[in-house]
Amino acid sequence: MVATAATASLFPISSSQPESVAKNSGKHGGGGQNTVDMHGIKPKSRGLQVKTNAQAPTKVNGTRIGVMDGLKSDDNPTSTAPRTFINQLPDWSMLLAAITTIFLAAEKQWMMLDWKTKRPDMLSDLDPFNFGRIVEDGFVFRQNFSIRSYEIGADRTASVETLMNHLQETALNHVKHVGLLGDGFGSTPEMCKKNLFWVVTKMQVLVDRYPTWGDMVQVDTWVAASGKNGMRRDWMIRDCKTGDILTRASSNWVMMNKVTRRLSKIPDEVRAEIVQYFVDTPPIVDDDNNIKLPKFDDKTANHVRNGLTPKWSDLDVNQHVNNVKYVGWILEASFFFLFNDLKWKSAPQTIVEKYELASMTLEYRRECMKDSVLQSLTSLLGNDQNALGDSHVDCQHLLRLEGGGGGEIVKGRTKWRPKNANRNKGIEDESG
Amino acid sequence: MVATAATASLFPISSSQPESVAKNSGKHGGGGQNTVDMHGIKPKSRGLQVKTNAQAPTKVNGTRIGVMDGLKSDDNPTSTAPRTFINQLPDWSMLLAAITTIFLAAEKQWMMLDWKTKRPDMLSDLDPFNFGRIVEDGFVFRQNFSIRSYEIGADRTASVETLMNHLQETALNHVKHVGLLGDGFGSTPEMCKKNLFWVVTKMQVLVDRYPTWGDMVQVDTWVAASGKNGMRRDWMIRDCKTGDILTRASSNWVMMNKVTRRLSKIPDEVRAEIVQYFVDTPPIVDDDNNIKLPKFDDKTANHVRNGLTPKWSDLDVNQHVNNVKYVGWILEASFFFLFNDLKWKSAPQTIVEKYELASMTLEYRRECMKDSVLQSLTSLLGNDQNALGDSHVDCQHLLRLEGGGGGEIVKGRTKWRPKNANRNKGIEDESG
Repeated sequence: MVATAATASLFPISSSQPESVAKNSGKHGGGGQNTVDMHGIKPKSRGLQVKTNAQAPTKVNGTRIGVMDGLKSDDNPTSTAPRTFINQLPDWSMLLAAITTIFLAAEKQWMMLDWKTKRPDMLSDLDPFNFGRIVEDGFVFRQNFSIRSYEIGADRTASVETLMNHLQETALNHVKHVGLLGDGFGSTPEMCKKNLFWVVTKMQVLVDRYPTWGDMVQVDTWVAASGKNGMRRDWMIRDCKTGDILTRASSNWVMMNKVTRRLSKIPDEVRAEIVQYFVDTPPIVDDDNNIKLPKFDDKTANHVRNGLTPKWSDLDVNQHVNNVKYVGWILEASFFFLFNDLKWKSAPQTIVEKYELASMTLEYRRECMKDSVLQSLTSLLGNDQNALGDSHVDCQHLLRLEGGGGGEIVKGRTKWRPKNANRNKGIEDESG
Repeated sequence: MVATAATASLFPISSSQPESVAKNSGKHGGGGQNTVDMHGIKPKSRGLQVKTNAQAPTKVNGTRIGVMDGLKSDDNPTSTAPRTFINQLPDWSMLLAAITTIFLAAEKQWMMLDWKTKRPDMLSDLDPFNFGRIVEDGFVFRQNFSIRSYEIGADRTASVETLMNHLQETALNHVKHVGLLGDGFGSTPEMCKKNLFWVVTKMQVLVDRYPTWGDMVQVDTWVAASGKNGMRRDWMIRDCKTGDILTRASSNWVMMNKVTRRLSKIPDEVRAEIVQYFVDTPPIVDDDNNIKLPKFDDKTANHVRNGLTPKWSDLDVNQHVNNVKYVGWILEASFFFLFNDLKWKSAPQTIVEKYELASMTLEYRRECMKDSVLQSLTSLLGNDQNALGDSHVDCQHLLRLEGGGGGEIVKGRTKWRPKNANRNKGIEDESG
């Protein structure tokens, strides 16, 4: 039930495979295919409707207006009694219409309520303050975000860092909404007592389409067990207007001691707090550990950059570099490599207009502190450099401590595609 | 009526003075003094209430529930007819109470409406979707922001970059709400026709207190003429809970041609679009150009950093480095200089816990593009380096193109203070 923006781990993690991730993601379908099975969460054609199969932990049908089965209260997070008082109202839609008539004066508010009455399938998603709410029998947290002007790049679309920021925010708000937010950055009360906080060991993100400035997106998140001492957190981002799936992400987390900075087993008291929120579904992005990445170092890598230093603003409340910040370094290295070194059929000025990140897997191996000096390695993975053209490109990445020892901070892989390529066909087609 | 996140200018700008800015700001009072005059916008003791004097462009009394004098519609931005239909309702507060009883099921929503009914002075500020709305006779745009987990630093408070992002967002939404948003980043329809966009020439920010994670802040913004061919945009940020003023900011803008990258006069057609929204009040932060900063270069500066390069993610839709991004460079240089070179009575690890930026003035002189390589200069201003102790420190900053010519990109000054120092006394005391 908990997850934070913390980073790093000394956990032994085997490599996973971008091809298989992409392939599997295709099974779940892309933005334009709203009928595919997504490990138990099956989107329907009317956007925000979500329906589950027998395996799924959740149960929501957007067309049943006002029904919020099993919605849990912040005051009593363990309660499983459904709150159905809305169902007792004689005519919810008429009441809403009346409210729509009198409630607000300002134009935008009128527009918004009007929009909601026109889309009855969205009524169960009412969350006017965008604080988020628990849905799907209490196992899924859902929050909307409006893409702001400062969250977009030169091409007007949100960056993957923006999306990952929203993932972090929903994870923390999920913990908060079930009443488990202690003093820490997602730590539960029992974790705080024991000086523990969450660190991410792995993050997989598949982006089918990037939202643009002004778009409203809906982020769903849920948690599951991951081995004996880990937790998995998954997310799904949808376009609120079309219902298209924009992004799927899956992550793994373990606990670290704030003082010793060593990993910890999950104490029984903490397990008792969180286990009730675990769902029993496979990850929304398959974790395939069978194929190893080729080894590479600063002598064999295609591109090496030295002397990277974290800024003060890169640190989070756990006093280390926030996991999202690594993405900026890796993206910048990718752009530099792909388009400066390889000159991927594009003048540098138009790079961000033409190409985009399709998917990314990051494995966090060690904390990065303020005084760390890093080396960033990038190489093409598999592809023939001379045959780049407009095809897709896989890269591998390594951020490690500079000089002596070469302690690995983050290992990662990225997959790049020309923009608009197969955008509506899902990622499966793109990796095929 | 318009402003964007664009940067840079070749405009001749005279230097301004941090001391006088801070002094003047004191006139407006700090967060703890809610009775001070703020150039015509006089806050009262009940937080979000705003009242104006004879000079002010606005007129709102939060205690008169439901009265929104002169609220303008997006559909008809030039209309001056007040929209008073809410006043015709027999009993707004009773209706609202009824709505509060039936409207929403989720816990957060209940809490929020309940909070609003308990604070009748805030009823005129209803904006449940946080899209923002026009207030104060149509001249002020107001939007709320919840401080998110990814907008804070290691000390849990929002960074000044976060605050400036919110300033940018409200500026753009202001333009949007009055129906003047063309295709560009804050450009009006007539500006788009003429290939013009806004660039900022000066930004002054005074921070009395930084909000923390989970706080809700209210940002007010308005525009005024600035010389013959410029526009001024001011902002005020308040804590929604306490009503305290957290931040005041004032900025100046001119127009640039997208193709020639040269500055332009304001064409008559554009002036006709925007002039109706100009208020006739002095800046919320006084602009004092009388005192010049001492000249300094890489030989005389206390601290020099070479080889700064913009990242792809630093660019905005105007294809140059966004004005907020400079702040990151300047803050990082300040931290490095003040706490690594000067060792301001603090171990580096606790710097961000102990010190904070009190105010900042940036003068943007030239665009910075993706391929620019910058040099960052920092020096103490006035203070005796040996007498730093816990006192306040003024710095001057220069970002310029590296090597040959040394074209100036941004000149700036910052004022730093120990955290919690005079926090509730306003900035006047701190600069005294």
